Amino acid sequence: MQFPLNTWYMAAWAHEVGDAPLARTICNEQIVLFRDRATGLAAALQDRCCHRGAPLRLGEVTDRGLRCGYHGVTYDCSGSCVHVPGPGKIPSKLKVRNFAVEERDEVVWIWMGEPAQADHSKILAYPYHGDTKKWPHKKHMHKVAANYMLLIENLMDLTHLAFVHKSTIGGNPQAHTDAKMTVVPKDTGLHFIRWLPNSAPPATYSKAVGITANVDRWMEFEYFAPGNVVQWTGALETGRGAEENRDQSGGFSLRILHSLTPETEHSSLYFWSISNGYRQEDPDATEQIFQEVNTAFQEDKAMVEAQQSTLLSTGGEEGLVNIVSDVARVHMRRALQRLIDGGNLT
Amino acid sequence: MQFPLNTWYMAAWAHEVGDAPLARTICNEQIVLFRDRATGLAAALQDRCCHRGAPLRLGEVTDRGLRCGYHGVTYDCSGSCVHVPGPGKIPSKLKVRNFAVEERDEVVWIWMGEPAQADHSKILAYPYHGDTKKWPHKKHMHKVAANYMLLIENLMDLTHLAFVHKSTIGGNPQAHTDAKMTVVPKDTGLHFIRWLPNSAPPATYSKAVGITANVDRWMEFEYFAPGNVVQWTGALETGRGAEENRDQSGGFSLRILHSLTPETEHSSLYFWSISNGYRQEDPDATEQIFQEVNTAFQEDKAMVEAQQSTLLSTGGEEGLVNIVSDVARVHMRRALQRLIDGGNLT
Amino acid sequence: MQFPLNTWYMAAWAHEVGDAPLARTICNEQIVLFRDRATGLAAALQDRCCHRGAPLRLGEVTDRGLRCGYHGVTYDCSGSCVHVPGPGKIPSKLKVRNFAVEERDEVVWIWMGEPAQADHSKILAYPYHGDTKKWPHKKHMHKVAANYMLLIENLMDLTHLAFVHKSTIGGNPQAHTDAKMTVVPKDTGLHFIRWLPNSAPPATYSKAVGITANVDRWMEFEYFAPGNVVQWTGALETGRGAEENRDQSGGFSLRILHSLTPETEHSSLYFWSISNGYRQEDPDATEQIFQEVNTAFQEDKAMVEAQQSTLLSTGGEEGLVNIVSDVARVHMRRALQRLIDGGNLT
Repeated sequence: MQFPLNTWYMAAWAHEVGDAPLARTICNEQIVLFRDRATGLAAALQDRCCHRGAPLRLGEVTDRGLRCGYHGVTYDCSGSCVHVPGPGKIPSKLKVRNFAVEERDEVVWIWMGEPAQADHSKILAYPYHGDTKKWPHKKHMHKVAANYMLLIENLMDLTHLAFVHKSTIGGNPQAHTDAKMTVVPKDTGLHFIRWLPNSAPPATYSKAVGITANVDRWMEFEYFAPGNVVQWTGALETGRGAEENRDQSGGFSLRILHSLTPETEHSSLYFWSISNGYRQEDPDATEQIFQEVNTAFQEDKAMVEAQQSTLLSTGGEEGLVNIVSDVARVHMRRALQRLIDGGNLT
Repeated sequence: MQFPLNTWYMAAWAHEVGDAPLARTICNEQIVLFRDRATGLAAALQDRCCHRGAPLRLGEVTDRGLRCGYHGVTYDCSGSCVHVPGPGKIPSKLKVRNFAVEERDEVVWIWMGEPAQADHSKILAYPYHGDTKKWPHKKHMHKVAANYMLLIENLMDLTHLAFVHKSTIGGNPQAHTDAKMTVVPKDTGLHFIRWLPNSAPPATYSKAVGITANVDRWMEFEYFAPGNVVQWTGALETGRGAEENRDQSGGFSLRILHSLTPETEHSSLYFWSISNGYRQEDPDATEQIFQEVNTAFQEDKAMVEAQQSTLLSTGGEEGLVNIVSDVARVHMRRALQRLIDGGNLT
Repeated sequence: MQFPLNTWYMAAWAHEVGDAPLARTICNEQIVLFRDRATGLAAALQDRCCHRGAPLRLGEVTDRGLRCGYHGVTYDCSGSCVHVPGPGKIPSKLKVRNFAVEERDEVVWIWMGEPAQADHSKILAYPYHGDTKKWPHKKHMHKVAANYMLLIENLMDLTHLAFVHKSTIGGNPQAHTDAKMTVVPKDTGLHFIRWLPNSAPPATYSKAVGITANVDRWMEFEYFAPGNVVQWTGALETGRGAEENRDQSGGFSLRILHSLTPETEHSSLYFWSISNGYRQEDPDATEQIFQEVNTAFQEDKAMVEAQQSTLLSTGGEEGLVNIVSDVARVHMRRALQRLIDGGNLT
């Protein structure tokens, strides 16, 4: 499946773009990110000096711009050459490709199509990063040797919890397969929510907020094509009316931003943040839940990388058969296809 | 050279197929072996869940069958799906390819063609594994980064002993090139025997059975296409009539089963067992000869992997020239070709 | 860019070709070098026994010639088989390809075209290796994962000193870009010299010869297509008339032979020697300058390997733009093209 290009992908966490050039591969393009010294704005160029092809990531950010580490050719944020070593004027052709970027909610987003077509209104809003009082959070990125779609799919079918995460966050397998699930397709992707009413709280929840009584538990996911999944997971003691109002204190409440960016057809950048909506004054609460989620994500990574490897050596998805639990996954693929089709028309 | 598929290859030692799934690549197919809990029988399926393509080797053997470790889809020994997570009936297409297997003489054999065509009468008999009183033995498998044919060839031309194994089991080079050799082509492969009459016993033999006087020494090999070589090597003191009756006690006597299974065009599984026909009450005797043979096999592996690498980068066998010592190798190739031709006809 | 074959490449330092076979890949050919026991002459054959394709580098040099380590087939310096194991005569086809070689100035040169066409008059003379009294020296080889042309280019554009070597031998960037440069194209390549008059001596020079006053500094390079660059770098105190006579004692003076041999399109052998024209009685002087140059060459290697990797993944040199400092590089490419064109005609 080809990558939609006229769309935004997460390129980096804002704090990663600092004094030194940062290299990332996105949709098969080698990109170098840097922060302009004068304006403080993030910028993205093709990671290839157009003098002799050296990668700009080995260069330095100077007052003039990004300077190649081989012969000193220097570029501004638009990719125009602003300095060459030695005498003589700068050839007008000396320009590297640039990409539109925008920094918002602690994320550096990149538009992989023509910069002039970049539609900044379509960037995913994630206001929880800005509300650190209510949602203290921790951010991370890990690489996965699999197509980004396989990672989105992993999130669309939670029956895997009982098997992939059986020794960590999985809990009772029957509970997951019996969950009440509502799936709503949307223009931008899809929304689903699963309810486990009146069920025993998982160990993670008890550890986080001390609940021991039965809880009404929810897992809400919204997919925004191509690569974002916004998750809100939580539980309130049964009887507190969780289904009517989930935004009460005293329960377990966790938001996760999953942002999947394709490096190549078979490798991805998995950016994610966890925001804990409880014990906000206690940094250990954030660290604890981060570690638990990270452990589970490593289990997903191992499974999805093995799945990718098997698909690669056996003709891709040929002969695979959908079952009932694939409903969200099927809607997800349709939403992505609409974006690809639309993106290629506009 | 293509692999014959309508034939038996060794897939595993029987003891390797136990509580956990075992993955093997055979003739370019990724296979998972497991043992049915109810019947105790070994089974082999394609190592790819037909739900989402995850490798079944990451799953678990349950009472119902082999359960995928991703979403819990479960298969019986025939590859039919017997369980899916969640509600709804099992789609009839949910089936993975299965392979005929048979366990005999401590070996799990696999038929790589259509299971319905599997001819169980053609499995190699190797009764020595069952006769542990006379033939105590030790089994092993190592991988070799070379086509399986190059390893069979290695066994068909023993002049290599003087060079590859010169510091281990090689002995006197002249003795090997002067050996009396009888080659007999057979329908199923070929048989050859080499005699070194009245020659000094190699260090290995002296160490094993304490012989110091001159011996009559034999090396007998039978090749069964495509991948099996049955070896009987031994020596009796000169004068004891070895050529008339080799099955006497008091000499050196060693049986080796070599079973070569192609993983890919350029990698192989080398299964082998050694059975010592002397000092049967002493487990050290088995261990000692196992270690000596293993050391020699590592020398072969190094040479054959280098040979494979050179052949790959220089147009294969083009321009190679046969010499007198290639006689058994030439018969071996013909037998294999007959199997390929016949296998494709039936 | 294809490799010219009817030309000489450095295959090895003479001292590397000794008792054991030495394997080298040159212009995509796997070569084995050895020294004939009778004549002491170096020889080069294809590294592939024509019996079963085993690499001859795993063999041994014997009194008869190079003996294959698999079955003992033995070749003389012309690649003719002189011995096979066992009875029977040697098939006349049993011959491996040989290459013309010549040992001169401590270098083993190889002609990659037809041996009969080898023109020994075209071998680069480098008499400094023979004059150890005036030019004590140290020799080395390292492999670089880049096309050999990228390494020659590195030497043709010294503006890189200010960036790649800024923390080692680079010195003042402005000095390098302001240097007086004279480029003279030649039939066999090109010659250029750069002068930095009345400039502060680099730390390396001061350390080597104790100069602290300002110096007139030169960097002279001659390129001989396809792979050789002869460098003479030095400095004399300003006022001693360096431009009129560089061959005075008391200054800094260093000769480097750079000999680049293609292994493949994307990997090279970088042979080099440094000869110090000062403190000739002190072995530490040679070792000191060797270490400094080696450090700088590792910096070049890192940059050029990254450049190669970027070029490979972005369509090669497409879209690259020359600037003023590329003048020597452009002449270099033309000289090489002449050799390729001429070499294919003759």
